[in-house]
Amino acid sequence: MSRQLFERVALIGIGLIGSSLARALRRDSPGTKLVACARRTETLAAVRRLEIADDTTHDPAKAVEGADLVVVATPLSAYAEIGERIAPALKDGAIVTDVGSVKQAVIRDLGPHIPRGVHFVPGHPVAGTEHSGPESGFAELFRDRWCILTPLPETIPEAAARVGRMWEDCGMRVVKMSADHHDKVLAMTSHLPHLIAYTIVGTATGLEESLKSEVIEFSASGFRDFTRIAASDPVMWRDIFLNNREAVLEIVQRFTEDLTALQRAIRWGEGDKLQELFTRTRAIRRSIIEAKQA
Amino acid sequence: MSRQLFERVALIGIGLIGSSLARALRRDSPGTKLVACARRTETLAAVRRLEIADDTTHDPAKAVEGADLVVVATPLSAYAEIGERIAPALKDGAIVTDVGSVKQAVIRDLGPHIPRGVHFVPGHPVAGTEHSGPESGFAELFRDRWCILTPLPETIPEAAARVGRMWEDCGMRVVKMSADHHDKVLAMTSHLPHLIAYTIVGTATGLEESLKSEVIEFSASGFRDFTRIAASDPVMWRDIFLNNREAVLEIVQRFTEDLTALQRAIRWGEGDKLQELFTRTRAIRRSIIEAKQA
Repeated sequence: MSRQLFERVALIGIGLIGSSLARALRRDSPGTKLVACARRTETLAAVRRLEIADDTTHDPAKAVEGADLVVVATPLSAYAEIGERIAPALKDGAIVTDVGSVKQAVIRDLGPHIPRGVHFVPGHPVAGTEHSGPESGFAELFRDRWCILTPLPETIPEAAARVGRMWEDCGMRVVKMSADHHDKVLAMTSHLPHLIAYTIVGTATGLEESLKSEVIEFSASGFRDFTRIAASDPVMWRDIFLNNREAVLEIVQRFTEDLTALQRAIRWGEGDKLQELFTRTRAIRRSIIEAKQA
Repeated sequence: MSRQLFERVALIGIGLIGSSLARALRRDSPGTKLVACARRTETLAAVRRLEIADDTTHDPAKAVEGADLVVVATPLSAYAEIGERIAPALKDGAIVTDVGSVKQAVIRDLGPHIPRGVHFVPGHPVAGTEHSGPESGFAELFRDRWCILTPLPETIPEAAARVGRMWEDCGMRVVKMSADHHDKVLAMTSHLPHLIAYTIVGTATGLEESLKSEVIEFSASGFRDFTRIAASDPVMWRDIFLNNREAVLEIVQRFTEDLTALQRAIRWGEGDKLQELFTRTRAIRRSIIEAKQA
């Protein structure tokens, strides 16, 4: 990134995603002024120590003053209050975007607060690790990952294009879709896998002590992969499930039916059914490798 | 490995595990004669092309002639017939071991065929990848992984110790436990994770076309990790589920109860319950990192 898309960027929430974006902007667009806003004093102290922003504040309204881009990057449950607080301070012509993993709820919570003359571009850079907080961020987090934008019918195309260019400059491939479709796709590819991983690791913690320590010792045989996913940020994920409730419950229901069918096949010794499914799922892995996502 | 523990080793089944062991023995114990036995002509052709055995045969009885170690490394459903066929040809004083992922069923299927004077040491090198076949093997597969031996009360300690030394020479940490306990631990750490991964990838294949292609595109957000596990060998895994039925069904039942509780918490907006679990599962990840299994 050598061009400067924005003069002043306000990052409301500066965890893994916010701080990774700050690092990428710092590196590639040194002329851009960065203001970081967080609720916790320790978070802002870390931001100052890491030198990833020009200014820090607890006050979202102060943070957005004069900003031509505002990026909301907090857990979803904070969006409505943030919208309310920043609304009066937003500069005319500013763009407000976000990084939330659910998009209909963001439009519901943030949308009504966006004043006329300010452009709202809901977005989701699909990137992350199981770590959280500003120390965990790194500029390369976004490289070769997807960024999904879900602009509203009234969003002017230029605003979405500028947000898209920023993410492209971070190395992302940008795609547009409706918020409704986004929430269904992510329920399957991200929310269900996380829910399942949290569940299975929870099931393991419920085992009698004699088994539990061995589950940890022998975790390399499959379980370990789930524990990495189930180490993701608890508050962020609580908010995702509560805010994408319908799509998640629908896909959990399908999953449960499929698991019950497999359970039944095991109980009744129906090996052909198991083998048929396992052969089918192996092919999916090949599709992912071909799509260069593995 | 510089010592030669065995003069002649018969490998009955030469897929990922069998061929990896062959490679390790070839490299570290070049004086050991290796005989590979497989049902399929292509498999034996691959073994000859890879030069990982001194001799190849379709006949298990012929393979074990004169062998002081026999390693059964086929899917579990073949064990009973293999036991029957090798029994008359086993050398007095030979050791029979295996690499199966379930141990009670192996004792049930192979045990009755082992003649007096032959030592039976059921074993499970807990290592693998999602690939299968003799081409997928590599000598380093076992490095720093666990090998679980489940010797019977009547097994002489020396026989188990020699099998253990062979796996240690491959870089494994060897531990002993009862077959019953092994099957419970692996049901949780390996069999349930695989069943869940197969299920979730199956659920994705059942989606309407418009969603399915995007699930592949956006798989990096969690789903991808499951597809790797769900690409594991279909026949091997069919046999594992059918042969560890009780332990698997018991743990699936617990998992389903836990998932239902989470589903309910999402439906009723009980964020505190979600956050409490997600905080607990994050701690498990830390235990695994401390146990150096991550």
